[in-house]
Amino acid sequence: MKLRFKNARILTMEQPLQIIEGELWVENNLITYIGEKPSNITEKFDKTIDVERNLLMPGFKNAHTHSAMSFLRSYADDLPLHDWLNNLVFPAEALLKDDDEYHLAKVSILEYLTSGVTAAFDMYYKPELTAQAAVDLGFRIVCLGTVTKYRESVEEMVEAYKKLNNHPSGLVSYELGFHAIYTASKEILSELKKAADKLKAPIYTHLAETKVEFDNCMETHGMTPTAFIDSLGLWEYGGGGFHGIYVTDEDLDIMKKRGLYIVSNPSSNVKIASGIAPITKYLEKGVPVAIGTDGPASNNALDFFREMWLVSTLSKLDLMDASVVDALEVLNMATVNGAHAMRLYNADILKEGKYADVIMIDLNTPNMQPINNILKNIIYAGAKSNIKMTMVNGNILYYDGEFYLNEDVSEIYKKAQAITERIKVEMSK
Amino acid sequence: MKLRFKNARILTMEQPLQIIEGELWVENNLITYIGEKPSNITEKFDKTIDVERNLLMPGFKNAHTHSAMSFLRSYADDLPLHDWLNNLVFPAEALLKDDDEYHLAKVSILEYLTSGVTAAFDMYYKPELTAQAAVDLGFRIVCLGTVTKYRESVEEMVEAYKKLNNHPSGLVSYELGFHAIYTASKEILSELKKAADKLKAPIYTHLAETKVEFDNCMETHGMTPTAFIDSLGLWEYGGGGFHGIYVTDEDLDIMKKRGLYIVSNPSSNVKIASGIAPITKYLEKGVPVAIGTDGPASNNALDFFREMWLVSTLSKLDLMDASVVDALEVLNMATVNGAHAMRLYNADILKEGKYADVIMIDLNTPNMQPINNILKNIIYAGAKSNIKMTMVNGNILYYDGEFYLNEDVSEIYKKAQAITERIKVEMSK
Repeated sequence: MKLRFKNARILTMEQPLQIIEGELWVENNLITYIGEKPSNITEKFDKTIDVERNLLMPGFKNAHTHSAMSFLRSYADDLPLHDWLNNLVFPAEALLKDDDEYHLAKVSILEYLTSGVTAAFDMYYKPELTAQAAVDLGFRIVCLGTVTKYRESVEEMVEAYKKLNNHPSGLVSYELGFHAIYTASKEILSELKKAADKLKAPIYTHLAETKVEFDNCMETHGMTPTAFIDSLGLWEYGGGGFHGIYVTDEDLDIMKKRGLYIVSNPSSNVKIASGIAPITKYLEKGVPVAIGTDGPASNNALDFFREMWLVSTLSKLDLMDASVVDALEVLNMATVNGAHAMRLYNADILKEGKYADVIMIDLNTPNMQPINNILKNIIYAGAKSNIKMTMVNGNILYYDGEFYLNEDVSEIYKKAQAITERIKVEMSK
Repeated sequence: MKLRFKNARILTMEQPLQIIEGELWVENNLITYIGEKPSNITEKFDKTIDVERNLLMPGFKNAHTHSAMSFLRSYADDLPLHDWLNNLVFPAEALLKDDDEYHLAKVSILEYLTSGVTAAFDMYYKPELTAQAAVDLGFRIVCLGTVTKYRESVEEMVEAYKKLNNHPSGLVSYELGFHAIYTASKEILSELKKAADKLKAPIYTHLAETKVEFDNCMETHGMTPTAFIDSLGLWEYGGGGFHGIYVTDEDLDIMKKRGLYIVSNPSSNVKIASGIAPITKYLEKGVPVAIGTDGPASNNALDFFREMWLVSTLSKLDLMDASVVDALEVLNMATVNGAHAMRLYNADILKEGKYADVIMIDLNTPNMQPINNILKNIIYAGAKSNIKMTMVNGNILYYDGEFYLNEDVSEIYKKAQAITERIKVEMSK
């Protein structure tokens, strides 16, 4: 399959950022050409799309989410994190059974497509179900271990690591991870260390998300969450932390030394009143920041434009300085840093030989007009209604508001609704 | 023209909030029926729309904006308010000429339609141009005086008041207003008082938006901005303040006593790093809060979903309490309070005899599925891509992503782009 996009503005995300005018060609799942329109085109294409001077750019990388939690969207809002987690989320999750997660994850994947997200870093139990949902919809996913003292064991994680990193689809990979220090025991963390050593693999976890987590860790271990995890050697091969709100200067040194990625999830942090991540400190220190939506239970949307806008503007508010965290920094976090955090090194920028994970931003909408600065428009004025196309691995999965999938979207909604209603009834008993 | 919406979920916004299932009928510009499907329908309709169990509700009221400022979208970001205003906005505005504002306002009105906004409270110079733009697109607008010591005089304002409050379109009204205390002189404020007394009319202004404004007022007048304006008797007939971030308990007493409305513009406040409005204090005191987008120069989008989400969640963050400012409060601010702040008493709720200013929220999208709670979904998960229809005064102006207007949208963009480029060239000289 050979595809030609003509008459395009193209933001490859190579530094320094610039918009080039020209063409982008795709063959099967890879980009084969980016540049000016050649004067003489001898190639034959299966399809030519006139981009009408809209913008092609790399898809956004949702570097932290829990896709299968769609059944908890708007189920339990307006509660503090630890109440929400212990009294509602955990009991409701315990009622998931069979292949529920497969159907629930699909709803979130549809939402990613509408938001220009071409890959997600998904932390949830039964990762093989979420991986299968992604594959069946043609979406790229990096599943992540979710070890806790209650559910997923280190052994199960290692098994998933081997299985999902050799998935035949070319759309799936897997990384080591545990839910959080407050749901892990010392034994589990020590087993995790052994697994990381054996696989020479990075480890990811929820990190320093709330003041309570920070204070409890200080009290129990006499160390910050970051220092505690590092003291166990868990980041010997790198990895990252999700949220990263409560960190000290010494924590930043650890992150830098270990080559960690911090994934910020500002909507969730604002809505659950967890706090504002110190993005400017990460930037100063050179700790790469990526962006995630968190799951639909806390957020409640999976709207990457909301997250990008907040990563910039919350820092402005926090420091009462409108000049910090420029839109261009955020574009880099949303694409390149996200891809690298997930170890998707072939899906970071648009370039010959890279995956054709490409989105088209519609500039012919009132929120983008008149045009003064396209890059700032994306971050400050953009919305998911500007996503005209989402292509993953060379396949157009979403175009002009329609999904192009192997299955009926309304059937996906129906399945998810039935599961949600069953759990609601069981929860009310 | 008789229109029938069948098979609808309907949120009238009458208290207590509930979703009814049934029909909504429109004749010309008014709602004629809301309720269950009658067993025997003898009426003849010009058009019947199957709502497919999506949600009909009153359009959002954008209670503070500067529509014609679209030429400054993404032109000068990442600057503090007073630098931004004095060094870029004011000089660029001085280059507007002829009917520029007419063309520029149209772009913003298109954006309102995509966002489910059916009326705007517009503060800008040459209000007759913005009013004409609204009328030509079929949009409802309340224009507002923008008196400053540099530009619009009280005399011009009074003239506009008489002219625009008798506009034959039925879509336009006008209220008294001045830009802010820091752009007014004592003489002007005293003339304004006389005008308000003569017309027995409320007065609106930018109020307590920044710490600088608050501190300067304390230093110059020994009073808070709210107390200073009140001391001049300007709110004898009510009115309101835009932003309202820096207020004391005594200020709240004044607002309550004068029956003022506070219009919160959270995106703008976050992006320019002005602060967070104390929404919970307003709610406790019973001072009604409405919601605005502010103008495209500061925001940079006119996305009502972003504003609604932030009004709730910024308060949660500010107080580090996820339980405050519930989604249902925000829905009331976005519709009923907004309409009342703008004195559009016939456009607040859906009811027989009220204006047919109705929007349809698409629930068949991944961000709304599965459905646990539709009302929370609107505020926490909704996006403007959920706006399936925007109807103003009985006319469907936007449906399924298409505009239904008397003019070509691409021509509106072209005109605005030409003006923007002319001003950019002049600014760079």
